[in-house]
Amino acid sequence: MMDEGRTHKADLMRIDLNADLGEGYGPYTLGDDAALLDLVTSANVACGFHGGDPSIMVVTASAARARGVAIGAHPGFQDLRGFGRRVIAESAGEIEAGVAYQIGALQACAALGHHRVTHVKAHGALANLSNADADVAKALARAVLAVDRTLPLVVMPGLAAERAALDAGLAVVREIYADRAYEEDGQLCARSRPGAVIHDAAEAAARVRRMVEEGAVITLAGRRIAVSIDTICVHGDTPQAVETARAVRLALGEAGFELAAFAAA
Amino acid sequence: MMDEGRTHKADLMRIDLNADLGEGYGPYTLGDDAALLDLVTSANVACGFHGGDPSIMVVTASAARARGVAIGAHPGFQDLRGFGRRVIAESAGEIEAGVAYQIGALQACAALGHHRVTHVKAHGALANLSNADADVAKALARAVLAVDRTLPLVVMPGLAAERAALDAGLAVVREIYADRAYEEDGQLCARSRPGAVIHDAAEAAARVRRMVEEGAVITLAGRRIAVSIDTICVHGDTPQAVETARAVRLALGEAGFELAAFAAA
Amino acid sequence: MMDEGRTHKADLMRIDLNADLGEGYGPYTLGDDAALLDLVTSANVACGFHGGDPSIMVVTASAARARGVAIGAHPGFQDLRGFGRRVIAESAGEIEAGVAYQIGALQACAALGHHRVTHVKAHGALANLSNADADVAKALARAVLAVDRTLPLVVMPGLAAERAALDAGLAVVREIYADRAYEEDGQLCARSRPGAVIHDAAEAAARVRRMVEEGAVITLAGRRIAVSIDTICVHGDTPQAVETARAVRLALGEAGFELAAFAAA
Amino acid sequence: MMDEGRTHKADLMRIDLNADLGEGYGPYTLGDDAALLDLVTSANVACGFHGGDPSIMVVTASAARARGVAIGAHPGFQDLRGFGRRVIAESAGEIEAGVAYQIGALQACAALGHHRVTHVKAHGALANLSNADADVAKALARAVLAVDRTLPLVVMPGLAAERAALDAGLAVVREIYADRAYEEDGQLCARSRPGAVIHDAAEAAARVRRMVEEGAVITLAGRRIAVSIDTICVHGDTPQAVETARAVRLALGEAGFELAAFAAA
Repeated sequence: MMDEGRTHKADLMRIDLNADLGEGYGPYTLGDDAALLDLVTSANVACGFHGGDPSIMVVTASAARARGVAIGAHPGFQDLRGFGRRVIAESAGEIEAGVAYQIGALQACAALGHHRVTHVKAHGALANLSNADADVAKALARAVLAVDRTLPLVVMPGLAAERAALDAGLAVVREIYADRAYEEDGQLCARSRPGAVIHDAAEAAARVRRMVEEGAVITLAGRRIAVSIDTICVHGDTPQAVETARAVRLALGEAGFELAAFAAA
Repeated sequence: MMDEGRTHKADLMRIDLNADLGEGYGPYTLGDDAALLDLVTSANVACGFHGGDPSIMVVTASAARARGVAIGAHPGFQDLRGFGRRVIAESAGEIEAGVAYQIGALQACAALGHHRVTHVKAHGALANLSNADADVAKALARAVLAVDRTLPLVVMPGLAAERAALDAGLAVVREIYADRAYEEDGQLCARSRPGAVIHDAAEAAARVRRMVEEGAVITLAGRRIAVSIDTICVHGDTPQAVETARAVRLALGEAGFELAAFAAA
Repeated sequence: MMDEGRTHKADLMRIDLNADLGEGYGPYTLGDDAALLDLVTSANVACGFHGGDPSIMVVTASAARARGVAIGAHPGFQDLRGFGRRVIAESAGEIEAGVAYQIGALQACAALGHHRVTHVKAHGALANLSNADADVAKALARAVLAVDRTLPLVVMPGLAAERAALDAGLAVVREIYADRAYEEDGQLCARSRPGAVIHDAAEAAARVRRMVEEGAVITLAGRRIAVSIDTICVHGDTPQAVETARAVRLALGEAGFELAAFAAA
Repeated sequence: MMDEGRTHKADLMRIDLNADLGEGYGPYTLGDDAALLDLVTSANVACGFHGGDPSIMVVTASAARARGVAIGAHPGFQDLRGFGRRVIAESAGEIEAGVAYQIGALQACAALGHHRVTHVKAHGALANLSNADADVAKALARAVLAVDRTLPLVVMPGLAAERAALDAGLAVVREIYADRAYEEDGQLCARSRPGAVIHDAAEAAARVRRMVEEGAVITLAGRRIAVSIDTICVHGDTPQAVETARAVRLALGEAGFELAAFAAA
């Protein structure tokens, strides 16, 4: 599943479906976690910095456990108001410490929910920065390494975070986005660009099927970038999130894939 | 050292000296951590809720490691402005989740600082409440149990937190305060009461020596409450903290005690 | 309308309908502000402590202005996670400063939204405490007095906050709750008590009509407590909030009342 | 004093000395506010976002009032951990709302302290950004304009914030820094550059005297940039802050200047 070449056919036909969950805070909710937990195989759980609070983290871990969904830490910038989507000009050391803090916090809350953390995936502006800035990518990798070197890092293929994780000796899980268009260099199109977000569930599903069957990211201009794909991400906080997840799940099944978490939960 | 009877003479003559450290936040500092780390054998490290931030937690863990000082998680209410000294009317579930969150966060930051967490001690209003309210005490114990059942809980002898910890099967470390007077029921005198806080280092040291030699807490009225004493707490945020710690350390040495952390660091 | 006897018939037949708005934060929303703004005549706007952020405060003030809805500051405890519904053990001085801070913050954000603050109403646990604790009530009144002595305080009739406001020389606006049952002493029934919250819009409307026509709060046991009623509160964060507001508005119209803000916006 | 040409000799010989005060939070203090209040004529008061809490704001306003020191709002990014020195990628609308929020909050807290706000000066990364980014500068000016168009904005001469303030019709107060070196374009040298911060009180004082006598900023290379100078800033959070303020005050007196706030307190 991870960094090694995948030689067994059985393994080739398994794929993971992930979404960001537990993104509420106190009285606030975001997205339909209950519905998504019935559809995904992995959940990236907010750790209290850009969303999530300790109680929600416990409840989310517990609910994921009950549905057999694997969970990962989803660290972000400490910016609830901006939902972790605004870059904060932190030092590499601050990022490293903040990421470790969030992973550990979720590990403990997961224990209360009788579950355990089996991956890490950066959120929002921190994820984007870790794909563009090697120092941030290395800080992220160092944090995972220090807390638990067996945790794979979920990454976009071909960018800085993947490189830093591999250099650090971490396993990586490569993902594509069901509902986002790609630039020619393999980065996500900025949300502000027309066509950057795919709102139609059927279109997203067809696109995902094509990418996993071809083993490639397909850019806006139609170029194919060959990548290995371990997991598909659907966003949890859009109105059509549940519908998209359902359509993607169906399309993957029709394409002969079995949905399963990349990590044994 | 912990819950079992202490039968070996060597063990009887060892005692721990602890202080709260890492209580700054961002640009702010509180207390002279560097000086105290040369005097104590255990440090209770703030976990970001009432003080401490991820960077400070890493630095504190690393500095403790360099001096051979054991560290513990020091969870409190999420109230930086009130420094965790104001009760927040949280449910038991909220307390349980918040305590677990903080322990896990410190475990991860400690890993970055090449150290590891070997005890838990509640802070401020949360500690007081856990000594007075059995439901809060149980929530605290459940959190420790879920995160790591081998972590001892530092408690005041004879109160609710000790009972809950023992009932939960946790080890306990019993502590007395070097610089605080005791009520007749074994609780700390409220800070607002005259004489509640002992500011004179020599007086604090003499008092500690008498209590450890007699194996008893001595109340304001002079009553002796027999308790087993595993550790002495000196507060880190007072002007005379370092002087008191030094005097207590000396007095314990003169009384024939060897200072050592209760937990193997 | 306020503290003085109401001698003009025209005035007697006017009443205000208020709801709590702007209670989202960053990416989070709570309640259907747009729908409620078409129904109420006054909005209590969260000020960033238990909900609301500066951007939401500006947008809410601006939207209220566009619909001719008066706005008031809705200060609460600084506890986003608990939505201001958990008491924090603050000193009277801390409460006084925090309330002033929030009123001033909203005044400034309202100015950006081309509106202005014309009342103050405490939120959640702070409101409850100000009705039960005279020191808290006085702190609340002092804060309003210092910031703008012409701002009326919205209060439940007969309790500590009303008394403190009147003693301080503030105008008061007396309110009843459309969707909450009353104890025999005129306090709200705790939410945990069965029947405390009235979920049926028609029942709430009928109840409001009866209370305003009789000029009395009606308790669970059916007792009538004569009070003057200046405004009706409907909660904004329940599923049936909009329906209840609509039904109450209709019922008040049928009873011959004209809906109008108590303060000239 | 402000934007208009200064034609009266009496006016020409008056100058203001300002420092940032009230930058503590909860249990934390930063700098020696009491000593600085005896030396400066204007204080920039933190408003709760990068430092300061409502209680500290009231106390600071009250203490300034008692010493006849004018106060201004000192808005910054909402980032206590980073003390407002890290840029957060906020939209112009978010900055505008946040600045208004902070000014209003201080106005209200000042009222509780029997004082009133008579200027605005941006803090840290927000100040730097407002000197480099015209959109941020305009957002800052719009916020001041909406809250109170009579409040002057304290600015570094010749940069974006001054331009935006003048375009918006605000008065400006031009300041130089006693303890910071200048680049050739009139911006402050980054703190990381050797020589950027002047630690010697006598050197700072001599430098200030030369700049005010020559009516010019003097760059690292020795170039003179003619500017009008209304106020001198000394930083409050350095070990030598008090000594520097005292030396600067003395030097200005020797040069024949009378120290007085630019705004009538």
